[in-house]
Parts: sequence; structure tokens; C-alpha cells
Amino acid sequence: MLTERYIKLGSEPNAIRSLFAYGQKRKAEIGEDKVYDFSIGNPSVPAPEKVKETISKLLEEPADQLHSYSQSAGLTSTRQAMANNLRQRFGIDAKYEHVYMTHGAAAGLAITIGAVAAEGDEVVVITPYFCEYSVWIETARATVVEVPAREADFQLDVPAMAAAINARTAAVIIDSPNNPVGSVYSAQNIREFTDMLKAKEAEVGHPIYLISDEPYREITYGDEVPFVPDYYDNTILCYSFSKSLSLPGERIGYIYVSDRMPDVDNVWFSVCGAARAMGYICASVLFQRVVEECVNEPSDVEAYRQNRELFTSMLDELGYEYIQPQGAFYLWIKALEEDDMAFSERAKSQFDLLLCPSSCFHGKGWARAGYCISPETIKNSRVAWEGLKASYQD
Amino acid sequence: MLTERYIKLGSEPNAIRSLFAYGQKRKAEIGEDKVYDFSIGNPSVPAPEKVKETISKLLEEPADQLHSYSQSAGLTSTRQAMANNLRQRFGIDAKYEHVYMTHGAAAGLAITIGAVAAEGDEVVVITPYFCEYSVWIETARATVVEVPAREADFQLDVPAMAAAINARTAAVIIDSPNNPVGSVYSAQNIREFTDMLKAKEAEVGHPIYLISDEPYREITYGDEVPFVPDYYDNTILCYSFSKSLSLPGERIGYIYVSDRMPDVDNVWFSVCGAARAMGYICASVLFQRVVEECVNEPSDVEAYRQNRELFTSMLDELGYEYIQPQGAFYLWIKALEEDDMAFSERAKSQFDLLLCPSSCFHGKGWARAGYCISPETIKNSRVAWEGLKASYQD
Repeated sequence: MLTERYIKLGSEPNAIRSLFAYGQKRKAEIGEDKVYDFSIGNPSVPAPEKVKETISKLLEEPADQLHSYSQSAGLTSTRQAMANNLRQRFGIDAKYEHVYMTHGAAAGLAITIGAVAAEGDEVVVITPYFCEYSVWIETARATVVEVPAREADFQLDVPAMAAAINARTAAVIIDSPNNPVGSVYSAQNIREFTDMLKAKEAEVGHPIYLISDEPYREITYGDEVPFVPDYYDNTILCYSFSKSLSLPGERIGYIYVSDRMPDVDNVWFSVCGAARAMGYICASVLFQRVVEECVNEPSDVEAYRQNRELFTSMLDELGYEYIQPQGAFYLWIKALEEDDMAFSERAKSQFDLLLCPSSCFHGKGWARAGYCISPETIKNSRVAWEGLKASYQD
Repeated sequence: MLTERYIKLGSEPNAIRSLFAYGQKRKAEIGEDKVYDFSIGNPSVPAPEKVKETISKLLEEPADQLHSYSQSAGLTSTRQAMANNLRQRFGIDAKYEHVYMTHGAAAGLAITIGAVAAEGDEVVVITPYFCEYSVWIETARATVVEVPAREADFQLDVPAMAAAINARTAAVIIDSPNNPVGSVYSAQNIREFTDMLKAKEAEVGHPIYLISDEPYREITYGDEVPFVPDYYDNTILCYSFSKSLSLPGERIGYIYVSDRMPDVDNVWFSVCGAARAMGYICASVLFQRVVEECVNEPSDVEAYRQNRELFTSMLDELGYEYIQPQGAFYLWIKALEEDDMAFSERAKSQFDLLLCPSSCFHGKGWARAGYCISPETIKNSRVAWEGLKASYQD
């Protein structure tokens, strides 16, 4: 029979995607350049030329083999390329046997959460966080436990996390560079956090898996992103090429179950089993081949850096408060009233300025503005930001 | 925490894919032409030339737009093309708003089963059936109820199905042209079955959804495939381009929720919600565009027809018993001993002949041989089929 949960999830879609859909409609009504859409994390930088070259080259192969099934975890050559990349960049002895190619990070996370958490378990998330985490945790029938990031700098609040972890804790999800805030957890912060987590594992007597959601790993502005498996053996990475290669609509990424994990075999089987149970057969073989060829292509961070400068200078002039982003391509801006929903609604309805309210991310009093858009849109939006500010000063 | 279910599903992969993996390994050991792999439904016919042309053309579009997110249900233009195709071919007033683009039929089925069945519900399947049905039914925490097909002709056994349906029945899954048998349910059979189902709905007082799994719809040898939504309003179609366009590794298909369904809105929302809950963001946008352009391309059924003639003539000469396939590209062959697992194992270990035992499909005493392979492999396999037969006559 139908369930309330699915009807609700389907009829009240993710607020970010709803704003984006509204923006598309509004642009058609009043013109592309009159709507300032900061709602979605759709990269403005095109995919590298090598993506196109690779696809063109692949099309010369016989079509009966090119498009045929791969093994569920992916093509061996693709998985080897992912493991090699991790080995070369981070010095970890990654084996391809523990790389599972997925339909992007969302699939990777839904599978991984399902693999390590079950009914009665708790999964800890850091507010503010990407809203779908809670959906996938609830799919696993586990309970979401929210711990706020440190207020001053949005780093992990280790004492608060320690207080939230108990014998029911199956996993913790972290995301650095962070969506929505743009913070990068420092090496010291990760060290303190994982030391605490190890102590908690010893205390509760079972593994607590650390799920590291890393779609923004390549997009930083100088800060180094600590490689989490170096700090904590029970780590599972969920990676996506959506942002680094600008392929969000093609749904390609991977899960890497750390080879240093004591129970790596069972966790690996559980990942394979969860994927199978949810109807995942294999990731697109064409895009497996594309990322196999392009995994070492650099991301065009410079474009986002320029957008960041342009955008923050403008908001500085207008007197907005925000968190200086160290990575990703989002600006976390203090709402001009306590109610972030009302703030975002006013920006939308009065100024055609589309911002995600922090409530979307289970946070209060802020808004997220994605600057993975054209510099022209940022420049043109000045009038809207001015008007929004002024509307609170009347 | 880890669950036994996922560890088991992951460590004991689907028997068909294991046979296929064995075949790949064995070919590397003793040579491509010495292994007669009838295990998997990987089309031997290449994707139509238009697939390649379409991808080449799409690559000329700006890469920042080409690969960007679509709405969860898919691109409007793609969904419209699917609805138009259904309208033109079957005369149904299909609305694109009820077409959901999926990562192939597996994702479509896992999502659809999740959308309409929940804990405590029962889902009826017809033995023999594609083994993953039961996995996805169990993911929804519903119970699998197996009803054998009619022994004589593998059509739906309507009285047996009537006896299996009760107030807990949420859905029935049918698959015509059928995998593994190759039968096509006749119009009369579908009529009797859906009349019974309507009477049962009236009796139990709630909808019983009919999930029609149709990846082989285009692959028939003269028989017409009745269009199920014409017979039963509470139908949900799960379609895939894996076989019709030979794109199994690209994972592209769709769900169509019949517009004639009284509660179409809630079922649609439930489909959207189930997809979201399992981590499906959108189907590959490149392959959405490909099927949008190629949905009306004819399938190369002639190649499979020739294989069917070649294969059945050979088995006739050797004295094997089988069901004459009306569609799909499988031959359902009577095992030469009661234990189909032992039969398949003997074929594999003594003759390098890879057949799926009927136990994989929850049936007893048969084996499935996929003839979606090269005519040369069929011809070369004669020695193995001869040897296998002789081994039972010694």
C-alpha cells in the first residue's frame, strides 16, 4: 500500500530543487537576466575539454561492447584508476577491490548509510547539513542526531559531538569542504575529532563508521583538505565528479571503503548488498570510462575564486555579514531577520533573488548563496542585494 | 550496524552475474571461442547508429548546460518524447507528467515496488521470474508470494493467482515477453487475468497495483504484446532501453504511471518519494537526450530471430526439449536431470557451457540459455551440447 512517508517526500520536493524550478519558470516569464539565481550547486564552469574528447574517442569503439553491462561495482580498469588516483595523491594503499562506482554521491551516500546503519541505530550529522542526509538516514530506519558546528568558525564541535555519541551510534557523516557553509575542517580539528571517535569506539565496543562526503574535495582556495582515512581507519569516502568535472547530471562517483578498516570485507559486502537491494545495477559505463580517463584533470577552481572575490567584495560594500568560504562554491550569509524562511521569501518575491534559507540545511538564521554562476549574474544582482538590505532599513 | 541481509546480498551476488563473471575469467584462461556463454542478457546486437550520431551531435552543445542536473523525474522534453511514443503506438492518453526517467528497469522496479508496497504487504510474482524481484520486494519489507505459471504454456495461471490474492496483496508483477521463458501473454490471458484482478480489488476494497516489467516489449517474433494499461487502470509500466536500444550498461529507462489510475496523483508522488529516498537524483542527462532522439528507432529483432532459428534447429537435432520462445532472447530448456543446479554445474565444469539453472528464477528442472550472442558462438557450442546430452546417456 502507499505510505505517507513517500507521498510526502514526493509531493514536497527538496526545497533547493523547488527554488531552482521556480527560477527556471520565472526566467521564462521576465527574462534570463532579471532573475538572480543563487539557489543550486550546478557548476557554471563547463566540463573539461577532455571529457568531450574522451567521449568522442569512445564512440569509435564497437557499440555492442561500449554500452554493455559492467560488474556491479564497476569496470575493473575504472576502479583501478580511482584507486591509483587515491594512492598517488594521498599515499594510501588503496585497493581497487574496495572501490564501488556509483550514480554520483547521492547514490553513494544512500548506499553507504544503508550499509552501516539499521533500525534502532543513530547517525550523527553536523548542522547545517545537506538536507537529503536525513532522508537517507530515515530510509535506513535509523535516527538522525544533529550536532551544531562551532558557532564561531563552523568547524567540528568535538565536545558537543562526544556528548551526542553513544552505544547506538552507527555512523557520523562529515562534509569538508562543507556544503552549505564553505568551511574546511583543519587538520587539527579532524585530529581532535577522530581521536575522540576512537575513544568512543573503545568505550562502546563496536565500530563507529565515519562517512566522509567529499564532492568538493578539489574546490578549495588555499586550505589543504585533510585526507580523512589517514586519521581514522573506519572511514568510508563518498566521492562525486559532479563538481570537480562539472558532470552533475551524469551521476558518476564512487565509494571507497578504507583498506585500513579492520572489518573491511564485511563492510564492503554490505555496501554491495545495499546497492543491490536498492536497484543499482552499475553506474553508466560510458561515464565510468570518462572518469577513468579524466580523474587527474584539474578542476577550474580559478573561476570560482574570481566569483568568490567579486561576490564577497560586493557584499562587503553593502554591509552583509557572511562566513569567508575556504572551499566549495557557496557563501553562508547572515539573514537580515531571525526567520531565514521569511528572509529568503522576501528576497525571492520582492527582488527575484533566489537564496536557500538555512532551514533547508537544518540551521537557523542564515541563507546559502551558490556562486557557481556567471560573473555577470553576480554583478547584475547588486541591485537586488541593495534593495533587500534597504528593505530592512525602512 | 551492519546487517546480515546486506552482507549476504553482497557476498552472494546474483547467480547470473556470477556465471557471467566466471565466463569472463574462463575465456581469459582457455580462449574466447572455447567458452559457450549463454548466461547473461547482454544484447549482441550493437546500439543503433543513431545513438552514436546523437551523442556526437550533443557534444557540440555547450558543456556547462549539456551535463547539468535535470529535474528528478527527468528533462521535460525527454518525458514528452516518452509520452508521445506511448500515445502514438498504443493510443493511450499518456501525460508526460506521469513519466519518470530512471536508471534502467532495475531502478524503476525497485522504486515502483517501494512506492506501492510496505511492511505487512504481499507482492505476487509468477515463477519462474527474474530473481531480483524478490530482493526488491524484501527491501520494501513486503512478502514475496510465488504463483507458478501454467505448466503447459507458461501463460498466467489465473485461478492459481486468484487463490493467492487477498487483502494484504499490494501488487502483482508481470513480465511479458517473459524473462526467463520467452513466453508472451496473450490478449485473452491478460483479459482473464485483469478481470480477475478487478474483481479482487472490489472484494478487498483497495487498489492492487499491476507492475508491468517491459524491457523486452520490442523483441517479439510475430506475437502481439497486449498493452497492459488498456486492460487495467491501476497499471505501472517499468520500461528500459537496455534491450531495445542495446544500452544495458548505460542504465536508462522510465516508469509510466497510467493516467487512467483513479489515485494517479498519490501513486505518482509515492514514486517520486521512493526514488528520492533511495538516492536517485536524476537519470544520466546525456542518455535522457539519447533516448529522446532514439525512442522510435526500431530494434534489430531480425538478428535475434536468426539466432533463435539456428539455436532451436540445433537443439531439435540433438533432441533437447524447450519452450518455443515468442519473445525476448532466451530459450527455456528442460534440464536432463531433476536437479537443475547439478545440470547447469555439469554443463559448466565439463563442457564450458554456461546456462542459468532455473533455480535462479525460483523454478525447478529447467535452464535458461540467452541467445543474444554471436551466431558463431551458437554454432561452436554444438560440441558442448552434444557432449552434455551424451554424458546423460552413458
